[in-house]
Amino acid sequence: MWDRFLRACRREPVDATPVWFMRQAGRYMAEYRKIRAKHTLLEVCKQPELATEVTLQPVRVHRVDAAILFADILLPLEPMGAPFEFVAGEGPRILAPIRDRQGIEQLRVIDPHEGLGHVLEAVRNIRRELDGKTPLIGFAGAPFTLASYLIEGGKSSQFTLTKSLMYSEPQLWSQLMSKLSEVIRLFLQAQIEAGAQAVQLFDSCVGQLSPADYREFVQPYLQPVFASLEQSGLPVIHFGTDTSTLLELQKETGGTVIGADWRIPLDVVRRRLGNGVAIQGNLDPHLLSAPRERLHQGVRAVLAAAAGAPGHIFNLGHGILPHTPPSAVTEVVDLVHTWTAKKL
Amino acid sequence: MWDRFLRACRREPVDATPVWFMRQAGRYMAEYRKIRAKHTLLEVCKQPELATEVTLQPVRVHRVDAAILFADILLPLEPMGAPFEFVAGEGPRILAPIRDRQGIEQLRVIDPHEGLGHVLEAVRNIRRELDGKTPLIGFAGAPFTLASYLIEGGKSSQFTLTKSLMYSEPQLWSQLMSKLSEVIRLFLQAQIEAGAQAVQLFDSCVGQLSPADYREFVQPYLQPVFASLEQSGLPVIHFGTDTSTLLELQKETGGTVIGADWRIPLDVVRRRLGNGVAIQGNLDPHLLSAPRERLHQGVRAVLAAAAGAPGHIFNLGHGILPHTPPSAVTEVVDLVHTWTAKKL
Repeated sequence: MWDRFLRACRREPVDATPVWFMRQAGRYMAEYRKIRAKHTLLEVCKQPELATEVTLQPVRVHRVDAAILFADILLPLEPMGAPFEFVAGEGPRILAPIRDRQGIEQLRVIDPHEGLGHVLEAVRNIRRELDGKTPLIGFAGAPFTLASYLIEGGKSSQFTLTKSLMYSEPQLWSQLMSKLSEVIRLFLQAQIEAGAQAVQLFDSCVGQLSPADYREFVQPYLQPVFASLEQSGLPVIHFGTDTSTLLELQKETGGTVIGADWRIPLDVVRRRLGNGVAIQGNLDPHLLSAPRERLHQGVRAVLAAAAGAPGHIFNLGHGILPHTPPSAVTEVVDLVHTWTAKKL
Repeated sequence: MWDRFLRACRREPVDATPVWFMRQAGRYMAEYRKIRAKHTLLEVCKQPELATEVTLQPVRVHRVDAAILFADILLPLEPMGAPFEFVAGEGPRILAPIRDRQGIEQLRVIDPHEGLGHVLEAVRNIRRELDGKTPLIGFAGAPFTLASYLIEGGKSSQFTLTKSLMYSEPQLWSQLMSKLSEVIRLFLQAQIEAGAQAVQLFDSCVGQLSPADYREFVQPYLQPVFASLEQSGLPVIHFGTDTSTLLELQKETGGTVIGADWRIPLDVVRRRLGNGVAIQGNLDPHLLSAPRERLHQGVRAVLAAAAGAPGHIFNLGHGILPHTPPSAVTEVVDLVHTWTAKKL
């Protein structure tokens, strides 16, 4: 069933639970490393034919139920006026972090067709290559997560500068979040127009906030983004890590599918969110490198916890790790399909 | 009331909510930096007169309701056979990380009176200096957290090597956790005998685990530690970060006080854990550097969320950050006392 992913997002009956993996295209695959041997990460992101190729690799190899556009959540920052680079072993580095009024005022609310046209071209290419056999997910980073990269200048463990700006300069914070939200909304709309059949918002860092701070500093900016995207009628996936205490607020913010990391069993998620949304997750990514029996046990536990209601998309609780054996990924796809197969 | 901290731990009536802060002795205080200008962190930990001095500094300056022994959670590792150093800007580095059978077998279950006598001497000194005016908390790192440092070799963000050993070599994992648990139990018993009036177990990294993994790989080792310590009749505080989904399991594991980070409101903690334990926490440490009004609002919110039942110890959700203004710390002590004062 080519559309079991889309059907599960809509909580419709499926012939088997759909599976895809965050970071399903990446270093753990020899096919990907072969391309990266000749091109930087940003080159792969910016050249539509390369982005198309790596997007398709896991579809071909693992027969996952959805392709996800190969891109980086930071891509909108460069055309907005905040260029960055990837430093080996360290991750992204914003060349001139944004920490004051001037920096925030200079950020441009771009037209994604201009600054991010290469991504939209990749979306069109991928749709063409997939030829209706596998649906394509577009994505973007959520405003809080992008704001934290802009302010910290890269990865952070404590988000001190981000929280400092948020608490001390709420008006600047509001301006920054408004600009980012608008860019993300336009970017995802454009991905949908280019052919994405679902979109995912990655709010990977938002779990650093208390529920009260989330409500004050994130929700007002993110809610209109979801409201606008949901008008498309397509599935909109809302994902974060460390968000066990934010789930109800995230649901209130928006999304037709809520993603959870491995810290919270999906039956607890279901109990707290009710049956009005689909749920995506949530195997600990480290289990893909564990001995077979342990991996099987983990997959079974996720499926059992999600079995109570329709609308489960099997995924990890976070992205695939670089040391993951590709064979385990293929195996999990097959296991999930086999163990959940039913006649419709 | 000198013992309002101890009374709150026992859920007895208090004249005001007690306050102390994790990392209340540290770089944010000029008095501490003055000592660290002449001595390394390990020297301060290992010389009882220095450890005593820095332990007393926040009691003198901020009039907190409890002193906590100045030490580092890694101290037991060196006498066990795994020496480490502190690398400027990076944190601790285990010189020879423990990742295989041989390494684990060579770890020694030490008598704390021998390998850690300097800590016990500091405890005796501090008790003498405090002179019954402020109670003293002893502490240790919990086994999972120490195991993760031993295996990763230092701080970690994903705990890949730790989970790999745990999943792939459950017998070795069991051996490692058993040794660490026994050392920690003996160490905290010895701190109690030396005069600690309460003890806290820091399981700062355990929030990386799913509830199922916690139950299998942590609880069986940690439960006997709590059972043994609770026989002392003294308060035993069980603290972790990122543990919102583990709270019920942590309570089951043990502790007369459960600590929570800022991600979960204390009324939710109370609802989930019931009235049979005291609760410690949980202001976001970043709020100490926020504008005054914002800080006051945060303190009020924590107190309001905890007001439903006796047994609240005001604290942060994690340790004080290095850039914290000391005046904010003093102010929070006063605010909490003033806002919660009552006649008994």
